[in-house]
Amino acid sequence: MQPVLAPLAECPCARTVESVGEWWSILILRDALQGITRFDEFQRSLGIAPNMLARRLRHLTESGMFERRLYQQRPPRHEYVLTAKGRDFFPVVAALVTFGNRYLAPEGEALLLAERGTARPVVPVLVDVTTSRPVTAASVTAIAGPRASAGMHHRLATLATRAAASSPNE
Amino acid sequence: MQPVLAPLAECPCARTVESVGEWWSILILRDALQGITRFDEFQRSLGIAPNMLARRLRHLTESGMFERRLYQQRPPRHEYVLTAKGRDFFPVVAALVTFGNRYLAPEGEALLLAERGTARPVVPVLVDVTTSRPVTAASVTAIAGPRASAGMHHRLATLATRAAASSPNE
Repeated sequence: MQPVLAPLAECPCARTVESVGEWWSILILRDALQGITRFDEFQRSLGIAPNMLARRLRHLTESGMFERRLYQQRPPRHEYVLTAKGRDFFPVVAALVTFGNRYLAPEGEALLLAERGTARPVVPVLVDVTTSRPVTAASVTAIAGPRASAGMHHRLATLATRAAASSPNE
Repeated sequence: MQPVLAPLAECPCARTVESVGEWWSILILRDALQGITRFDEFQRSLGIAPNMLARRLRHLTESGMFERRLYQQRPPRHEYVLTAKGRDFFPVVAALVTFGNRYLAPEGEALLLAERGTARPVVPVLVDVTTSRPVTAASVTAIAGPRASAGMHHRLATLATRAAASSPNE
């Protein structure tokens, strides 16, 4: 068996995981995508310890997901507003919601995603932006990008060889 | 200011986060979606301590993401094969990859998603399964589902009222 080398630091999935930092941060981003901006609201929504929340908000601000804005002068109070980058985390949250509704809500859904305006429920699926063809575990694979290291090339080649050797279709 | 109640246990996003359990598990699922099935391969890929890996694999098996299969009799060895549920976690991983490539790979991408067969790179975006319209933070909102508690109704109504009172469009 060939070794499967581990260029973890190169993997875009691992980088996102590393950048966001921890589970709480996903729920903070979820709240922000629902319109929450203020410390005390995040705290009430999440039931999280203030020092932990402050740390996570600082981290997400430093990593460019939030912009901190003064909304009150005396005493000074800041709110946390999603940047364009922060709003682009939406597909991750939407995918988590979709999975949760499909597999983890046997009693029925408590929350649905719906079109603004019409309130018609939507079920998000992934398609390619160019061809509109479905993007699924069966239809796509990972290939080396322009800046792949030798280790990443080796890993992907090893996995591709094995996939070809196993069942022809999923 | 109205209280923003916290029906965390009801939220499908929080449920998924809770069910998967922790960051390592996402990377284990990422590896599995790339075709890794065996303990020592996960270990080499992730550089994770064996006891931690064993715990995460057990958890993901108990939560129905993996099926454990005997692949060798003497000594007995098992591999971890994704179930349909586990494969349906793919959109979360794909969304994390897409975000990472867009925002966290300033030097260029090391890994791309591509169509099987043609190896043409794809960029996944979310659309509604019925209308094919884009599903973005600006186009959708969260509404109460059929099994929403009073607390969830209250939370969503509070957030909707506030959204209506703030900027008309994002």
